[in-house]
Amino acid sequence: MPLPAPSASPERVDIQLGERSYPILIGAGLLDDPQSFAAVPAAASALVVSNTTVAPLYAKALRQALAGRFRTVHLLELPDGEVHKNLRTLNLIFDALLGHGSDRKTVLFALGGGVVGDMTGFAAASYMRGVPFVQVPTTLLAQVDSSVGGKTAINHPLGKNMIGAFYQPQLVVCDLDTLQTLPPRELSAGLAEVIKYGPIHDMAFFDWIEANVDALVAREPAALAYAVKRSCEIKALVVGQDERETGLRAILNFGHTFGHAVESGLGYGEWLHGEAVGCGMVMAAHLSQRLGGVDAAFVERLTRLIERAGLPTVGPALGADRYLELMRVDKKSEAGEIRFVVIDKPGSAAVSSAPDALVREVLAQCCRAE
Amino acid sequence: MPLPAPSASPERVDIQLGERSYPILIGAGLLDDPQSFAAVPAAASALVVSNTTVAPLYAKALRQALAGRFRTVHLLELPDGEVHKNLRTLNLIFDALLGHGSDRKTVLFALGGGVVGDMTGFAAASYMRGVPFVQVPTTLLAQVDSSVGGKTAINHPLGKNMIGAFYQPQLVVCDLDTLQTLPPRELSAGLAEVIKYGPIHDMAFFDWIEANVDALVAREPAALAYAVKRSCEIKALVVGQDERETGLRAILNFGHTFGHAVESGLGYGEWLHGEAVGCGMVMAAHLSQRLGGVDAAFVERLTRLIERAGLPTVGPALGADRYLELMRVDKKSEAGEIRFVVIDKPGSAAVSSAPDALVREVLAQCCRAE
Repeated sequence: MPLPAPSASPERVDIQLGERSYPILIGAGLLDDPQSFAAVPAAASALVVSNTTVAPLYAKALRQALAGRFRTVHLLELPDGEVHKNLRTLNLIFDALLGHGSDRKTVLFALGGGVVGDMTGFAAASYMRGVPFVQVPTTLLAQVDSSVGGKTAINHPLGKNMIGAFYQPQLVVCDLDTLQTLPPRELSAGLAEVIKYGPIHDMAFFDWIEANVDALVAREPAALAYAVKRSCEIKALVVGQDERETGLRAILNFGHTFGHAVESGLGYGEWLHGEAVGCGMVMAAHLSQRLGGVDAAFVERLTRLIERAGLPTVGPALGADRYLELMRVDKKSEAGEIRFVVIDKPGSAAVSSAPDALVREVLAQCCRAE
Repeated sequence: MPLPAPSASPERVDIQLGERSYPILIGAGLLDDPQSFAAVPAAASALVVSNTTVAPLYAKALRQALAGRFRTVHLLELPDGEVHKNLRTLNLIFDALLGHGSDRKTVLFALGGGVVGDMTGFAAASYMRGVPFVQVPTTLLAQVDSSVGGKTAINHPLGKNMIGAFYQPQLVVCDLDTLQTLPPRELSAGLAEVIKYGPIHDMAFFDWIEANVDALVAREPAALAYAVKRSCEIKALVVGQDERETGLRAILNFGHTFGHAVESGLGYGEWLHGEAVGCGMVMAAHLSQRLGGVDAAFVERLTRLIERAGLPTVGPALGADRYLELMRVDKKSEAGEIRFVVIDKPGSAAVSSAPDALVREVLAQCCRAE
């Protein structure tokens, strides 16, 4: 089998975690290039986990790229969607691994978006108490956020991402070409996590996103390449300092406390995760303003950018009581007290509690009337 | 509430794993003494996970001992038995945790034998990606083996302990009084794991067990105390050198490759884990003899001790093909090659492959005729 023509040398961002360090490769044409996977430990077998939407597009190319390193490369197609990110679907991965006689050296490849990555990562963490895995994210959201940093999880009917592990991949391969086949809603959902990095860490990047949001929505390759790279750099910086979220890392959840309540309250899959985060960032910005961290102009500027990215900026009418109830089961909560990520000044975030009354004002302001 | 009278100062064995180090306390009257749990991090809530057999005996005392450290101490009773060590039962723990609004500081207590400890430990590893947990083992097997060292897992229909995590507890509390209520079969099952430590590491301890096996079967407190302490010391030594079983730690699985095949082949719960390990050690000793590590007198001596401990020494008639098939999914197997723990000289063990023909001879010699 002839090798494909070598792609242009990919960009590389390193996650520095001592013996758990690994590279993120970012570029075009990576997925079908065996060179992208040169650092993956060789083994008798590999299992590519994907879903019924992504597998028909990319599984064949990936399996061919891996054929030189593994005697067998199996494929498992999971049902697509956040609604399937549960224990039952997770068990399909274990069934496949055991059905194929996989051993402790078998390498798992997560080919898809955040749901596939989260489930495959947790399966890799748990199968025989840990086997190697590689993230091959095919959505913008997964490339800039969920595939990087080792958070893996499934949902429980009573809360999102409640069951999981911190478990780092061996490698993340972000093939930018895959973003060209992404449905528009999913591209926008990914932009929510890109935008997030501005308010919490880097207002110069925020300026750049504002200037380039139309190019991003139009999927101009150079714009996407920079957005993915800069997002991964910021995530690497944060994760490198606080792998297990004992402090700093929580800032990456800006917009997520409100967002998870939206996702959970509407039922998983109704809104995409990134859509809920977009809208959640608007709410979190209003809360930040009420707590004195930012001014009205900043809130307006962030809201406008989220809107331009094609994301909702008004929350669904779940009712304040339901929002509060849902947010109390957020993982950041302690002893029933909800802890929000707020902007304490533009480009800097912190975790803070807030009086229920203030949160109710924000919800009244930011959600559709019941 | 008056404190119970202080117990005699417990013995203490330390597991040395850097920041994951923790003590094992061994003694009488520990379970209902708040002092035993003085080192456990305080939190709003705790969840005691037990089973329908053990909870009626000890849950009330443990909850009272914990009442000073936690605002609420909930209890979850799981169905009893290895047959329930699966994903469905595990999910009952997550249901309880979320139903009680447990947060990231909630402490889990595993009150019971190996099954309760394995499932509670894996639930603690996975709930919100990790909450603290404490082992309170009430069987001899759990006190000398499964509660110590951080191996947690559940079974899959296609293999034992296939899904799990390495996740260390904060503390192990071995209350020797609980061994007095153990059914005789379970006491014998625990002795299998005690006996194991002799051939793999310490023939002086083996001599001691031979001299004291009747006292152990009669549950003489001083004999049980020494057996638990010395077993924990040896396990601590091995685990301290190889937490994640990249090498040395595998020797603790002496008898387990054959034993897992027996358990899995008969259906979980038919034989107790310790019974299968007892019989598995006889098979592994025969294999060691054929590989030149020990002589016939050693095999005879080990077989006789296992028998005196009340354990089976002859394997069920599963057929050699089925044994081999079941052993190929053992976690130590690689690329389909079964790897056995064998005694290379009395008091020393190693991992080794073996020709199928040799294994078939051993099975023919050690199992009931079909």
